[in-house]
Amino acid sequence: MPETKHVVLTSHPPKSGVKPPSISWGAADAHERGPVIGSLQNPEQRNVIGVHSGAYGVYRALAIASGKLDPVHKPDLTNTAPAVRIGPFPQWSDPDKIVSMDPWGHLVAEAFQDELEDGYDVRPTIAVTKARISFPEVRESIAAERLTPDGEILHENGDVTVTKAAIEPVWYLPGMAERLGVSEADLRRTLFTYTGNMFPELVTRGDLKVFLPPIGGITIYIMGDESALWDGSDREIACRVHDECNGSDVFGSDICTCRPYLVHGIEECVASSQRGGAGLIVYNRKEGRALGEVVKFLVYNARKRNPEGDSAASYFERTECIAGVEDMRFQDLMPDVFHWLGITRIHRWVSMSNMKFDAMASQGIEILERVPIPDHLIPADAQVEMDAKKAAGYFVNDGVSTPNNLKLPKGRGLGNF
Amino acid sequence: MPETKHVVLTSHPPKSGVKPPSISWGAADAHERGPVIGSLQNPEQRNVIGVHSGAYGVYRALAIASGKLDPVHKPDLTNTAPAVRIGPFPQWSDPDKIVSMDPWGHLVAEAFQDELEDGYDVRPTIAVTKARISFPEVRESIAAERLTPDGEILHENGDVTVTKAAIEPVWYLPGMAERLGVSEADLRRTLFTYTGNMFPELVTRGDLKVFLPPIGGITIYIMGDESALWDGSDREIACRVHDECNGSDVFGSDICTCRPYLVHGIEECVASSQRGGAGLIVYNRKEGRALGEVVKFLVYNARKRNPEGDSAASYFERTECIAGVEDMRFQDLMPDVFHWLGITRIHRWVSMSNMKFDAMASQGIEILERVPIPDHLIPADAQVEMDAKKAAGYFVNDGVSTPNNLKLPKGRGLGNF
Repeated sequence: MPETKHVVLTSHPPKSGVKPPSISWGAADAHERGPVIGSLQNPEQRNVIGVHSGAYGVYRALAIASGKLDPVHKPDLTNTAPAVRIGPFPQWSDPDKIVSMDPWGHLVAEAFQDELEDGYDVRPTIAVTKARISFPEVRESIAAERLTPDGEILHENGDVTVTKAAIEPVWYLPGMAERLGVSEADLRRTLFTYTGNMFPELVTRGDLKVFLPPIGGITIYIMGDESALWDGSDREIACRVHDECNGSDVFGSDICTCRPYLVHGIEECVASSQRGGAGLIVYNRKEGRALGEVVKFLVYNARKRNPEGDSAASYFERTECIAGVEDMRFQDLMPDVFHWLGITRIHRWVSMSNMKFDAMASQGIEILERVPIPDHLIPADAQVEMDAKKAAGYFVNDGVSTPNNLKLPKGRGLGNF
Repeated sequence: MPETKHVVLTSHPPKSGVKPPSISWGAADAHERGPVIGSLQNPEQRNVIGVHSGAYGVYRALAIASGKLDPVHKPDLTNTAPAVRIGPFPQWSDPDKIVSMDPWGHLVAEAFQDELEDGYDVRPTIAVTKARISFPEVRESIAAERLTPDGEILHENGDVTVTKAAIEPVWYLPGMAERLGVSEADLRRTLFTYTGNMFPELVTRGDLKVFLPPIGGITIYIMGDESALWDGSDREIACRVHDECNGSDVFGSDICTCRPYLVHGIEECVASSQRGGAGLIVYNRKEGRALGEVVKFLVYNARKRNPEGDSAASYFERTECIAGVEDMRFQDLMPDVFHWLGITRIHRWVSMSNMKFDAMASQGIEILERVPIPDHLIPADAQVEMDAKKAAGYFVNDGVSTPNNLKLPKGRGLGNF
């Protein structure tokens, strides 16, 4: 345990003395932009609100409390640099294009070498590595001759070679406010108040423009030649933006189409890569439309117990009754990662969601073709979800169910599992 | 946007006036225990620090900031009650047994009906529903005749019928402090300080003993007859406690054994259920040993670039260099969910981890047999992890690699994906 017993409830802008490095969000040069310092190793060096690692910052505090972690431990970054070079790209120097992540987050050891040598504890908020991934369904696709191994992108045993990156949330508050259409002051005050007084610095430190929120981040998986994403060669790019659904993505729950969609995305990404392009999966930690899993399971029960059966007509309505909204994913923020990757055009977009499509369009990223999920990948119990989405205006290239059809119960009742 | 501009940076214990319902943690009777009220609908009703939904509380605040969610929305809980009855059990009335979740969290609509009728906004922190889950690997097990469908637990198409529950973190701070071996005051101060001043109420509201931290929760999956878990009949119970590893659990990355372990756990759970018992998977949102995915990928790069190759000898060492500790999962808290389920004995425990085993033992939950993962489920690149774990004292029933073997590089280098 640290020995000091003195607790300061909030901080205020320093009036004099040594100030931490400033952040000039959107500056083209890393040094001019300045490092993001969220470490507590030297509190006077901090130039952000919050701490690193998203929600896992709470566990780090527990580790310090229980005496397991030295509070002044500084990471040894030897050999941790990105396995593949990403950026910088022109999009990084537009403060409006990227507002929810730090485009320099993976390059800190290089871009902020001077600051690190001067003793500043600059930590990566992005890590880029290589991997081989393995989906049993991809082996099934090979067996069914929908995919053919090439030995480099797709291996004989079904493994797929990928470059992957983990990305922590880093919010530039003025840009976030503009993206959401509110004033920065209102955003700060509401974030503070409606999280139950989390981070008084949101209110007292108007001089700190960057916030590391305690939420989940993003993982991306790139297949094929990464440079196809950003080199302007117009080689084919396939992409699936996937919002976490643990019950389906991991456990294959048959009430929704999440894992089938992800598998379909992987297949499309492999195919585009094999045609000389690249594939990109963006995996966002936004469980249950960012409502969380408890709300999601409550909605399942309410749907399954609907006296008229689990039908498409009540799909969104039940969510709104319980959560107050249908969706909290804020797709407006989703295109940031595309700007980070220097992407301006997607050839094959594996998604039905108009919210995602519109968010990309509003950020000027072109989508040439929308690829719907093939019917054979949709579990029977998930037909309710598909009908509801189609009727709500999700993209389809076949007919929308008629209103009478939407009321027909199609999902299982609770007594029928 | 709410109209008030007045911001109070922290609150203090009320000296007079109407106080919120009190919480008497560990009381046997729900009404005496009192409801957990983390809603901001009526701030004067609150009797905890923090808000509901773990880390997703931040998204709820964003939804209010952007005008999408009415801040006074109150959930309509019609038809959301648990699909299967769980508890109450004697363990619920021991304040030391459950400290990181609310045992009454799924029963609020029933247990706190009076309070709900009086206008208190009591929200579930647990939801229990039914599902069918589907693992492609289970279909492979059926084809290989390791599993046989029975039509009830395991279906012909490989689907498995489960009862599942999502559980949000609810921390009873005096109990948490005792479990971690620190004083409550030190725990509160360190949590506040080392999260970068998150929740000043941790310091100013010693009268509020319950904290809803912004972290991920738990999902459990029960197979077979749930009552075998708690009815004292000593029917066979198989269990796997699985800590999230998105790269393997979802994407099947071959650097570790996480998804293979989970699949093995599912197979054991199905088999025990078919022998008249039950199976339990506990899925904890503790990515990368609760260090988060960015740290995990940095460690991968450092391992793969080790001049002596990616070997077992440096496996834990590289993690500690970067993160300061090997592990932040706090397995001491893990047994809470077993107490919630009324479990006193596990017959088949699908895990090698001594930390998990010891945590169960220290909570008085008996483990009869430890079941290691079969060799045929271990990917080649993951042999480094297996050797490192065995050498570090993880449970094995075969030999431990000799020190020289541990230095042999076994994992791929970064140029070899």
